Amino acid sequence: MEQALQAMADNTTNRASTIHRKNISNRQVHLQWMNQICRSKKLNYVMEGNRICSLFGIQYPIIQAGMIWCSGWELASAVSNAGGLGIIGAGSMYPDGLRENIRQCKAATSKPFGVNVPLLYPDLEQHMQIIIEEKVPVVFTSAGSPKIWTPILKENGIKVVHVVASSKLALKCQDAGVDAVVAEGFEAGGHNGREETTTLCLIPAVRNAIHIPLIAAGGISSGKAMLAVFALGAEGVQIGTRFVCTKESSAHENFKTKIVSLNEGDTLLSMKKVVPVRLIKNEFYKAIQAAEDKGADGGELVTILGRARAKKGMYEGDMEEGELEIGQASALIDTIQPAKEVVDEIWNEFVATKNKISSLSL
Amino acid sequence: MEQALQAMADNTTNRASTIHRKNISNRQVHLQWMNQICRSKKLNYVMEGNRICSLFGIQYPIIQAGMIWCSGWELASAVSNAGGLGIIGAGSMYPDGLRENIRQCKAATSKPFGVNVPLLYPDLEQHMQIIIEEKVPVVFTSAGSPKIWTPILKENGIKVVHVVASSKLALKCQDAGVDAVVAEGFEAGGHNGREETTTLCLIPAVRNAIHIPLIAAGGISSGKAMLAVFALGAEGVQIGTRFVCTKESSAHENFKTKIVSLNEGDTLLSMKKVVPVRLIKNEFYKAIQAAEDKGADGGELVTILGRARAKKGMYEGDMEEGELEIGQASALIDTIQPAKEVVDEIWNEFVATKNKISSLSL
Repeated sequence: MEQALQAMADNTTNRASTIHRKNISNRQVHLQWMNQICRSKKLNYVMEGNRICSLFGIQYPIIQAGMIWCSGWELASAVSNAGGLGIIGAGSMYPDGLRENIRQCKAATSKPFGVNVPLLYPDLEQHMQIIIEEKVPVVFTSAGSPKIWTPILKENGIKVVHVVASSKLALKCQDAGVDAVVAEGFEAGGHNGREETTTLCLIPAVRNAIHIPLIAAGGISSGKAMLAVFALGAEGVQIGTRFVCTKESSAHENFKTKIVSLNEGDTLLSMKKVVPVRLIKNEFYKAIQAAEDKGADGGELVTILGRARAKKGMYEGDMEEGELEIGQASALIDTIQPAKEVVDEIWNEFVATKNKISSLSL
Repeated sequence: MEQALQAMADNTTNRASTIHRKNISNRQVHLQWMNQICRSKKLNYVMEGNRICSLFGIQYPIIQAGMIWCSGWELASAVSNAGGLGIIGAGSMYPDGLRENIRQCKAATSKPFGVNVPLLYPDLEQHMQIIIEEKVPVVFTSAGSPKIWTPILKENGIKVVHVVASSKLALKCQDAGVDAVVAEGFEAGGHNGREETTTLCLIPAVRNAIHIPLIAAGGISSGKAMLAVFALGAEGVQIGTRFVCTKESSAHENFKTKIVSLNEGDTLLSMKKVVPVRLIKNEFYKAIQAAEDKGADGGELVTILGRARAKKGMYEGDMEEGELEIGQASALIDTIQPAKEVVDEIWNEFVATKNKISSLSL
């Protein structure tokens, strides 16, 4: 498997160089477009001096995580229109689907938005080609090294953010020239760091390690949690789970309904011998868990996983046999709302919590 | 094992009634003593209106966790003298040792202090008898039901706090009449909840569930983290890992030195088939991990564990074959300091972070 990944990475480097040469001429055009949408004087920065707001040209430092099967153009454009940064999750899209989503998103909002690209996915080069051609202003990369793609995307005028689960990788990202880092804790949904560092411990560690803007993720679903991570040194938040539970999310209704019914302990980090992933405890999870308890190796787990489990669960609505990736914050969420309402509630609670903390009598 | 625990619990109930009857006459005397030390007009409440400060009669809502092998009277009295609440960890003490520690603590401080008592330990009734006889003002209980001992301790004028890892148990504690709850997240050292809820997700859930005072624990080693959990609804913090790294802690010097050298990912929650415990990744941990990977059951793990592993590591200083329980916050700690310096630094950083948050321009 290691060899296969290396071969894929080498191949990527070669193809990346080609894309790079082909697109450098687009740079001027793209930068003009970026200036138009990101630096428009019509934007009201609500949070003065906040580096995440000025980096992306957004009102609130609230970013909707790009997630497989849940975040298409409807959700991304709704969040961007509400003053946050909406992100299309490319990980579950074929190249044509990604292009379609980007175009629809541009038609639905004049504000900045982004695409999340897991760097180990098979259609990677095509995805990047489309992102550059379509002049997407922001790219969040994850699950791979930031070294190869960061310079290429940046030379095409794209803001680049990489998702990490340790201060060591955060430092590598800074060295690779990313514009910001998302540090994601153990409580997050989906695929997760092996070190299991929680958001409360991770954010101060990453803050100590890097000087570039820092976005916190994992376990954040409210304005209180947003204030908490700001106290730890974050300058913005990336929120996944709560945005799955919105009217505009492309998750299956069964999945949304399931999430709002969850309590503490209803998700657990699983599949650690393959790639750790936080799952809802359904029949599929139990099968994996039973195999792990008996000492099954990675190969056996991959066999149980089979193909298209995540789609089956999150997109097609099979709540027992599907792979249901979601964060611990699910225990704190009890309604399905429009995305704008979520952004507004989080921001208002952030302001209220700031005022409450300010009034502490010490 | 379940039967054995039940038998122990039944036995405890009977003996508890005896102790209850025997000590009820001490109540008046004890309450007077409590009034003297807890409600002395000499105390300056630094945090006006804070329920944890007024409950215990302390200056700062900073509690040093009672920990096996690390928190004897030297540490507890140093923390109490510094304005926090110091706690003796009874879990690693024989009854005589506990009595000696309580007496030394009373001699070393005129301020309130507590004893932490794990409710499943074999010497439980003797421990409780001593605590009542010695008029300890505060008891933190953990690892068991709060129903049996809470009323007995309270009738003897003792403040009772129970440690939980879920909002469900927090609610049971409130119903059992405890004075406050410690909610401890996944990132904490030592024995840990099976649901793996992190502090960031646990505190808001517990805050929603109960109305009594709430102390946050797990991953807290700084004033920034203290402010973060206050934003989530906590009114005080319980800190373990950082107080192990103090001059007054009874941990072996090797253990203290080891902790300050740790980085992210150097601890992991282990022994989940027995009782989950967060361990430093040493040779003993690797042996457990290898057995777990092969599907070993609880019995096999207990055999590998053997007897007195924790003492061997934390108290006797064997860094490879000992059981080394510590929290994720270890990655953020790099010095061994006097306990008073720790309390002062945490408090000063809490105030500074509060001021920084207050000055956010929204």
